[in-house]
Amino acid sequence: MNGLTELRGMSAARIERLLDAAEAHRAAIASGAAVGSKRRGQLVALMFFENSTRTRFSFEAATHRLGAHPLAFSAAGSSAKKGESLLDSVRTLVAHGAAVVVVRHGSVGAATFVDAHVDVPVINAGSGTGEHPTQALLDLLTLRDALGELQGKTVAIVGDVRHSRVARSVCHGLRALDAKVVLSGPGTLCGPELTALGAEVRPGIDDVLDDVDAVMMLRIQRERLGPAAMGSVEEYRRGWALTEARAARLPSHAPILHPAPMNRGVEIDGAVADGPRSRIFDQMANGVYVRMAVLEEATWLG
Amino acid sequence: MNGLTELRGMSAARIERLLDAAEAHRAAIASGAAVGSKRRGQLVALMFFENSTRTRFSFEAATHRLGAHPLAFSAAGSSAKKGESLLDSVRTLVAHGAAVVVVRHGSVGAATFVDAHVDVPVINAGSGTGEHPTQALLDLLTLRDALGELQGKTVAIVGDVRHSRVARSVCHGLRALDAKVVLSGPGTLCGPELTALGAEVRPGIDDVLDDVDAVMMLRIQRERLGPAAMGSVEEYRRGWALTEARAARLPSHAPILHPAPMNRGVEIDGAVADGPRSRIFDQMANGVYVRMAVLEEATWLG
Amino acid sequence: MNGLTELRGMSAARIERLLDAAEAHRAAIASGAAVGSKRRGQLVALMFFENSTRTRFSFEAATHRLGAHPLAFSAAGSSAKKGESLLDSVRTLVAHGAAVVVVRHGSVGAATFVDAHVDVPVINAGSGTGEHPTQALLDLLTLRDALGELQGKTVAIVGDVRHSRVARSVCHGLRALDAKVVLSGPGTLCGPELTALGAEVRPGIDDVLDDVDAVMMLRIQRERLGPAAMGSVEEYRRGWALTEARAARLPSHAPILHPAPMNRGVEIDGAVADGPRSRIFDQMANGVYVRMAVLEEATWLG
Repeated sequence: MNGLTELRGMSAARIERLLDAAEAHRAAIASGAAVGSKRRGQLVALMFFENSTRTRFSFEAATHRLGAHPLAFSAAGSSAKKGESLLDSVRTLVAHGAAVVVVRHGSVGAATFVDAHVDVPVINAGSGTGEHPTQALLDLLTLRDALGELQGKTVAIVGDVRHSRVARSVCHGLRALDAKVVLSGPGTLCGPELTALGAEVRPGIDDVLDDVDAVMMLRIQRERLGPAAMGSVEEYRRGWALTEARAARLPSHAPILHPAPMNRGVEIDGAVADGPRSRIFDQMANGVYVRMAVLEEATWLG
Repeated sequence: MNGLTELRGMSAARIERLLDAAEAHRAAIASGAAVGSKRRGQLVALMFFENSTRTRFSFEAATHRLGAHPLAFSAAGSSAKKGESLLDSVRTLVAHGAAVVVVRHGSVGAATFVDAHVDVPVINAGSGTGEHPTQALLDLLTLRDALGELQGKTVAIVGDVRHSRVARSVCHGLRALDAKVVLSGPGTLCGPELTALGAEVRPGIDDVLDDVDAVMMLRIQRERLGPAAMGSVEEYRRGWALTEARAARLPSHAPILHPAPMNRGVEIDGAVADGPRSRIFDQMANGVYVRMAVLEEATWLG
Repeated sequence: MNGLTELRGMSAARIERLLDAAEAHRAAIASGAAVGSKRRGQLVALMFFENSTRTRFSFEAATHRLGAHPLAFSAAGSSAKKGESLLDSVRTLVAHGAAVVVVRHGSVGAATFVDAHVDVPVINAGSGTGEHPTQALLDLLTLRDALGELQGKTVAIVGDVRHSRVARSVCHGLRALDAKVVLSGPGTLCGPELTALGAEVRPGIDDVLDDVDAVMMLRIQRERLGPAAMGSVEEYRRGWALTEARAARLPSHAPILHPAPMNRGVEIDGAVADGPRSRIFDQMANGVYVRMAVLEEATWLG
């Protein structure tokens, strides 16, 4: 089962192979190559138990680009409402012919759990605060596009690292490729225990900007801001937002990433998001190519 | 108009023809045969005025497998909310080019009503407590897979027979094939008047298990349980659940079916649902092949 | 960028070219011509920030008929709920590979705004009380089917003209083709300032019926009826509904149109909607052909 449930423990060779395959898809689409027909009629289960725009569309686009068809399950309007278990819902789509199951779920380890119980490849499209491996792969591709080989490079990840499955997966991926990771954020959202990810923790963003090769901003969920948690939006902005002034301090070769959706004016200034070093929409485009590669690996037809 | 609105009155010949066609689709898919192209660009209206997972995905998968495209209408997010009539909604999808209309609706006879008023074939995907013919066909195929010819065989249907459109359609189908049907359930949900379906009624499940060739459990809706109706979950389990102990009493050749979604621990034990004689996920797989056969019959291209 | 954001200012030549292309698609489909393959794998973003049945299905059907694939975005279940801006949502689908963006939105000018900010063609599927150009094109095609060349013909539009984006776009289209437009409705919903659209305003429907070549009824939104606004349903019916009696007064060659969904028994009698001169379901069918033409113009492959 060539699924993909986490980047933790994945070899550099497999990561590079997936990024190379994504690049090949990108080149083929740019050249207007015809859609392959060998997956025509194949079904890809897209099971989203949490809301999603980007990831869902990205897998859907990748499915169409491969010539296959999505079976899109969402918790609303389904038997999940009638109390059906996660596993029965997944088995249902497998029984209906899905060649591969893509699953997003609010619980850590959901994809791994599903993977252990069904006979088709499972792809993790985000599991609680656990991992989000395909997002990390698209980030790695975007970084590689901007920086070349990532070995020895330093990437900063700034914001609510603790609750971010994206940060977790990116950390694993960058470490596998021998890049260095610096984490930064308020103490409640980015504590010293995160060094367990193989990363360095530097609380203040201003201690980070001058010597990194790339910076990846995380979305800050407004519901985590407030007196009980970590102070106001203003305090957050003062401490950790990527403002225009801070962006100007970055080394000139350093791209800026964000997994989106953004809170413009909170964790990132609109002018930075739309500025020349932003790679935010390139990340999305790369997401389709990366997911084509991951789906293709999962449903390798020999 | 080769639609399918009910099994009542359908000939054994047509039933067998549909099951044979479903088997042929199953064999073709298992052998990796290419998807046909003669229905490419054809549109299948999937109109679900009630929630559904299985039936909706099954028709959607069947549509893709035939090379056609679903136009998926659901009551939420549509003009049905603006007070548009059922018939105007259906006519809208027909006007948009749907070659066939699949309709699920909360009212008995809804599909028959629609069928009388539009010029394309109509397929009933469940009409209130009326019929659910494609579900019955997949049950018949699953029974035929397990038992061979059904003539002379005895099939038990256990639970809330009164409100079950599945039970009603299965009864009609089994009777057409000269099989014997035994119905069992609490008096409020399975009364003697159901003998009008051509079935025998034996209230206690324990009077049924020893001499049947197959047992089909029905989902019990929790809202039907309670002091006013038919007692607690415990009472229902004691009287009619297919527990591990009861399943062990079944003849060794007898398969266990359930239309799903299941209430594990209510009408069926999880261990039984996942056990070796359960055909519950085979039913779902057969659903796709049966619906391919039904859609193909409806849109026969000559 | 060959998008389509409004009919205001569009040349008669481009309108006729689109209607001719729609007719050609209609003929090809009627003759069972194979779906083209040159758009296979191409993605069409269908972004509906307002509910829709007809327009959404029409674009979806057109997309399938062209061999392309819809990426269907709706405000519910998406990041729009997380506060993402309209433009970021659109850019997201463009980044995911959409070759064209179809957008419906509650604000006047939304499509024009989007068009100014993205690099792919944008098609307006209804913008607040602004324009709804593809609906107008299907109306023009339906009128041309019934009446031949529209130059010199007179078309009445009756009802809530003020809030109708359909009426506005149809007016522009008919004027471009040198047809005459008569607007009619209660003073609060159809005032003299609408002559700015190049139309004549005659408040009473009874002053309109005898000398028009076609009549287009508009949907009256019940929430606009009431003491504060314009009186009861009964008053509206008495003044402006197309009843059977009024329909009988129309010249014998005059077709009846309605953009649907209809309020049968309010602005139009059911018997009129289903009567021999009603073209309401022809309008829907034409909608698919017109949208094929518009999508094809937008994504011209050379």
